[in-house]
Formats: sequence, C-alpha cells, structure tokens
Amino acid sequence: MRKMRRKGLASMAVQTVAPTTNAVDLGPATGLSCRECGERFALGPIFACELCFGPLEVAYELPAGDPEALRKQIEAGPANIWRYAPLLPVPADVTQKPNLNPGWTKLVQADNLARALGVEPGKLFVKDDSGNPTHSFKDRVVAQAIEAARAFGFTTLSCSSTGNLAGAVGAAAARAGFRSCVFIPHDLEQGKVVMAAVYGGDLVGIEGTYDDVNRFCSELIGDPLGEGWGFVNVNLRPYYAEGSKTLAYEICEQLGWRLPDQLVIPIASGSQLTKIDKGLQELIKLGLVEDRPYKIFGAQAEGCSPVSAAFKAGHDVVRPQKPNTIAKSLAIGNPADGPYVLDIARRTGGAVEDVNDEQVVDAIKLLARTEGIFAETAGGVTVGVTKKLVENGLLDPSLTTVVLNTGDGLKTLDAVADTSQATAVIRPSLDAFRDAGLAN
Amino acid sequence: MRKMRRKGLASMAVQTVAPTTNAVDLGPATGLSCRECGERFALGPIFACELCFGPLEVAYELPAGDPEALRKQIEAGPANIWRYAPLLPVPADVTQKPNLNPGWTKLVQADNLARALGVEPGKLFVKDDSGNPTHSFKDRVVAQAIEAARAFGFTTLSCSSTGNLAGAVGAAAARAGFRSCVFIPHDLEQGKVVMAAVYGGDLVGIEGTYDDVNRFCSELIGDPLGEGWGFVNVNLRPYYAEGSKTLAYEICEQLGWRLPDQLVIPIASGSQLTKIDKGLQELIKLGLVEDRPYKIFGAQAEGCSPVSAAFKAGHDVVRPQKPNTIAKSLAIGNPADGPYVLDIARRTGGAVEDVNDEQVVDAIKLLARTEGIFAETAGGVTVGVTKKLVENGLLDPSLTTVVLNTGDGLKTLDAVADTSQATAVIRPSLDAFRDAGLAN
Repeated sequence: MRKMRRKGLASMAVQTVAPTTNAVDLGPATGLSCRECGERFALGPIFACELCFGPLEVAYELPAGDPEALRKQIEAGPANIWRYAPLLPVPADVTQKPNLNPGWTKLVQADNLARALGVEPGKLFVKDDSGNPTHSFKDRVVAQAIEAARAFGFTTLSCSSTGNLAGAVGAAAARAGFRSCVFIPHDLEQGKVVMAAVYGGDLVGIEGTYDDVNRFCSELIGDPLGEGWGFVNVNLRPYYAEGSKTLAYEICEQLGWRLPDQLVIPIASGSQLTKIDKGLQELIKLGLVEDRPYKIFGAQAEGCSPVSAAFKAGHDVVRPQKPNTIAKSLAIGNPADGPYVLDIARRTGGAVEDVNDEQVVDAIKLLARTEGIFAETAGGVTVGVTKKLVENGLLDPSLTTVVLNTGDGLKTLDAVADTSQATAVIRPSLDAFRDAGLAN
Repeated sequence: MRKMRRKGLASMAVQTVAPTTNAVDLGPATGLSCRECGERFALGPIFACELCFGPLEVAYELPAGDPEALRKQIEAGPANIWRYAPLLPVPADVTQKPNLNPGWTKLVQADNLARALGVEPGKLFVKDDSGNPTHSFKDRVVAQAIEAARAFGFTTLSCSSTGNLAGAVGAAAARAGFRSCVFIPHDLEQGKVVMAAVYGGDLVGIEGTYDDVNRFCSELIGDPLGEGWGFVNVNLRPYYAEGSKTLAYEICEQLGWRLPDQLVIPIASGSQLTKIDKGLQELIKLGLVEDRPYKIFGAQAEGCSPVSAAFKAGHDVVRPQKPNTIAKSLAIGNPADGPYVLDIARRTGGAVEDVNDEQVVDAIKLLARTEGIFAETAGGVTVGVTKKLVENGLLDPSLTTVVLNTGDGLKTLDAVADTSQATAVIRPSLDAFRDAGLAN
C-alpha cells in the first residue's frame, strides 16, 4: 500500500512555492501531519510528506469543554458549512469573507424509496448535495481551498477537472475575488465547457485525456509558470479534502445529533469517504454524538471499480483500472485514497460494492420517481449499490441508513435521455388525447 | 382593463369538478375572493369569479396578536417555505406530509455586482432561487398547489408548461404520491423533455405551440376526460400563485425583518410580482416589518415586453405581443396579471423596464463573473434591467435593492454557449502554455 502511493507521488513536486506563508490563521488547524508516518509540518501549500511521500492531512486543536455549549454554538450558526467553522481549517471570521456559502443541504427522509428497496420506512435518508450553489458537493471542498488560498496569499486558483470541479472553482473564485485558470480535456461535453467558462476565469482545454490534464498540472506546479498558483486538488488538497467532513457533521446534526447506523458513499478518489469517517470520529471525540458503531459502505460503478474489486478479493492494495462507465465523476481508475477506504469499510463492518451502467440509470430513475430527486450518475451509483446491498443482505434494512447524492442530474442528462421521453405525442384535440389512453 | 380580462377568461371553464371538497383545511385560508368585484367563494378548485370573470385569490384570517411571538415562531420553523405556514393556504401539519420543501434560498449580498453596476456596496442583494429542489422558483408555487390538491382530493396533477413547470410538477407529484400528466409543446429542447419525463409521470407532447398546449388544457379541464385532475396553473391557480408570497417573506426576514427599499422582479404572467407585493403588505399589516415605502420594478425582455410597453406609454391596458426572446420562461405575450403589475409599479413609484437579448446574455455573464451565480435567462433579464434602471436614474443606487434570480443557468445553457468557451486549447506542454500567455 505504501509502496504504491510512493510510486504515485514520487513523480510530483512535493513542496510548492507560495507567495507568503506568514501569519497563517486557519482557525483550529495547527499543522499538517503525514497520514503514513505521522510526521508534522507547518501549515502551508504542501501535500505530501518530505520523508515518506505519504499524503498530508490537517491536524487540529479541536474545541475542548462542554459539548452542549458547542452544540448550541453550532445550531446558532449560519445555514451553511460555516456553522462548523470551529472544526474546519478556516479563520473564525470566515463568514465575513465573500464565498459561496455551500452546505446545509437537505437530508430527505426517503420513505417511498425505502418501500421500493425493502427498507423500513422512516429509516432511509438521502443526503442531497445537488442543492449546493453549483449543484455538487465540490462546492464544500472548494470553499475550504479558497480560505487556504487566502491564508497563503495565492491570487490565482486552478485545478484539473473533468468539468464539475472546474465550474465549482470558477464560481467560487469569481465571488471571492481570485483569478482562476482551470484545465480540462478539450473535448468535454458542451454543457460542462459552458459551466466552466461562464464565470469568466480562464479555461484551458488540453489536447488529451483527463490523465494528460493531470500530468500537465503536476508539471506546471513544479515550474515557475505556475508560481503563486493554488491548485485546489493538488497543493491545496489537504485543506480542500477537509470540506467533505461537513457532510458527516450535517448528517448527524440533521438526524438530531445522532450517528446513522449505515452510510452509503460514492468512491472516486476515496477522499470523500475517508473524510466523512474522520468527521464522524471527531463528533464522537467531541461528545457531540453518542459513541456507537456505524458501518460505512463504498459505492462504485462496475466500469471503474478498483476499490470494490480489491475489497471483494480481500486485497489491501488497489489495482488501477482503465475507466469505462457513464459515472464520469467517479471515474478515477487509480484512486489515491483507495487503501484507506478498504481499511474503513473493513474496520466498520461495511463493504464496497459496484453496479453496472444499466443499474445506475435504473437507480437514477427510481430515485426520481420515488422522491422527486434528479441525481447525477454518482447518485445513481449510491442508490443502485444500496439496492444491491439490501438484496445481498450486507445492509440491514431495519437500521438508519444515509445514502449520498453528490450531484445533479442536469449535469449528466445523457445518462437518462434515451429512456426519459414523452409518453405520447398527440395533436391538440380531446379525441387524440382519449386515443392515447392517458385519461383517468 | 376589466374588459380585457373578461374576454380572456370567458372562453374558459370557470368551475371545475373536484372529487370532494368536504372538510377543506387549508390553514388560515378562509375562502376565495374576486380580485375585481370582491365576491367571496368557498375554498375549492375554482379560479374565476362567477359574477364578473375576475381572477380569484385566497383570502385569509391571518394570525392576530403579538408580532414578536409570530416572528419567534417563524424563526424556530424549518429552513424552507413552511416556516411561513401560518401565512399560507396550507394545513398546520404541512411539514408532516411528503413534499419537496422548497424555499429559504440564499439572499446573496452582491458587493462585486454592486460595484460593477455603480450601486453602493452593501446595498445590493440577489435572491437566488436556483437553490430550490428543481432549481427554479416554480417549486414554491407547485408546493402550494400540491397541498390544495390534497385538500380537494385530486389524485392526478397536471399543467401546461414550456418545460420548467413540467419538471417541478413531475418532481413534487412523485414525492407526494400523486400521479402526474403534464403537457408541453412536442418540439422542446431535449434537456427540458428529459427533466419533465425523468420523474416517471406521464408527459404528453402536443403538436403545436405553447398557446396550443394552453388551449388544449382549457378544453380538457371542461371535459369529463380531465375530471378529477388538478391543473396547478389553472384550477389550482389561486393557491399555486400564493407560493410567490414566500419570496417576500424570506427577503424581509433575511434582511433582518426589514423591507427592502427597491425590488427588481421578472414579469411573465405578472403573478409573481403581484404576490410579492401582497406578501410585503401582509408583513406590514402583521407588524412583522416597519411600514415604510418600497418601490417595485418589473423586468421584461424586449422581445416580450407588453407590460413594459404599456408602462412606458402610460396605458393601463396591456396589448398582447408575439414573443421572440431567448428569455423563454418569461415569454408570455398576454400576461394575465399585467394590469395589476402596472398598478403596483405606479403605486409604489417603481417602473417596468426591458432589455434586449444581447443585454440579457451580458447580464447573465456579469452576474456569473462577479458573484459566481449562474442564472437562467430570467435572471439575466432582472440583472440587465437593474443595470438599465441605475443608468437611467430610476433606481436609487444608495438604497437597499433586491434583485430576483428565479432560475438556473443549467436550464438555458444555449443563451451563453457561443460566448462561454475555452480561452485556449493547447497541447499538454509547458511551452504551449507559455505561448498561450495565460501564466501570471
């Protein structure tokens, strides 16, 4: 597991140049620590350990004292992720700065879906992140990266993206007053190009695949051309990734400060799943929720299921795959956090499962017609996997279960377009309507 | 003005058949009253006065007593429109019923946009309704119609639509457990067809224009084929329309229980603008906000500007137009509430203005690059009109102004697609990037 990560990161620049790192105030964040060897580093735009090349993550001094007082403070906070500012790497005055204020999305009690899946009504919930400003969970992570970029004095924000992240970065940068310059494969769908360009930042199409875009960005970070640039998912990644913790916080608070029994979370890089687990553990440590067992289930598309394959084979390394699935926002063939996901699924008694593209489409439509939620393909993956986990007995249908929808169906219309058409096309006459057989 | 409305409605069925109207509980709603002659009717699925064919609207017995207690009750309510249940035609237990729970969308302090428009920073706000479940304000009005449909015992929901409303009805019906059958022109853009079909209800394409669809629906309401159907924007319209009041409530509460000085509101049928005014008046009457003057400005696209034309000509009747604009969600050439809009704009000292399609596109992009909000064309209309009103001196740039964005740019991508493209397309090499001239 370590060997693989080293190989992956060894070719990338570890330390990047920031304009200034003086007087960094990122609230409760006290430094960065290596997830592999535990080495500590000062807060800065770095992302891999100088000693072992392990990934760095944010270390905190979390609020001590009465959990009830902290709970009240949070509940009195704004209806967005900043209600959890005391638990995030952001300055205490974060709400005074211009940003998109994502989060506090709906936790929908999904009784109709529960009945369709054979889950006890009242026990199934969908955390619907399509309600975020640019309609995906990416707004949560970008919001953290923006605050880190401010703290480090960056004035240009960047990322490599297949579209969704580019839009989230473009929008957040526009409002926060950063220049943005983001990189995408040049042949993306028109809709994603427009979404990434409309916020007025620079958008660069790279002649090549997403892997080529990624490689190019890694080169750029190490080059003077990229000096002073904050790449949200590279040199700002430790901060960026923390945004996913807010999903854990919100789910528990929305359940009445209670841990769910089971969570079904999509896996792309695996970062979201690992950070949700981190968030749940923090809530337990802080005494904000009762400490009791929960199971975390990871969800992949069959066409890009390296973590699911490893889980099922009992491996603790993840063999990279070449993605081929309609769930493009999850199509990372070599997921950086894959081994950690395996650890968490096994430790909590969960599992990692996958569904094929047909099942993804069926699940998108099932969620739409039961709950009125139009999910992107990643949401089809989690709902489809939930169905499969109930069928194969791995998920207990009598326990509280939260399924994540991380994006919006409007962004992946193609997935359902063929099978979502008019029931009938008729002349505007009552006779024609009668003949169509649709009257009560 | 009356003559025109009579002519418009005389050809439509006034009373429609509901399965049952016993024991109607719609909370504080006590009946319907004719907006023209004041005649009162019992709550039911009717929409035009039997005496004068005037439009009916909901009459209330609003909560009496201490405003502070009501304010506290509202503030303790859910983060959606149901916090205002005591002021809406819905039963008190509305939150116990499955619905999409729209509303409580962001009121964004738009300092960057303010600077761009020459408005005093801190004084300009965008009420961004793209955060609703199906990403338009339609979720607010459909949510009211759903509760009325429940009260009247309807089991099928319907509407005529150019797309957005069809999606909102499909989604809300799916979650609330209604059958839906909605009507659209058969040649709509693919995306809108998919959005309207994905929720699993019946979707009927009508061979003809939106006007043909409307005429067909009017026929269907009067025919046994449509018996027992609730058409949200026809026989449930009095209830449906009340949903727009929640925009007024939220804006004032989000401003700290204060009236804005100026509002810029898009005009399609004009219903939204008139109901926002109604909502503001209710807040004043209830003592929830201080009674002081506010100005209401209506915004139209030049290619469909019958109300703006009437306002500028000093008329109190609205001459129908044949719409030709990219702002399709506002393209109602014969707006039913046009005369009331004229009354309100004149009474409050506001105005009605219009912008051309090029200005709409420029305004969409201005809002995106200043605030990170990607609006649909209707949002381009309101922002563009705000710009024009500042320039022509009708809007005071030193006063608190709220501009509505009622929908999402993802639904009208075509408007900005031509001009929102990659800045550069390059090979994945540092040399190529240097040559593109985009480095800092």
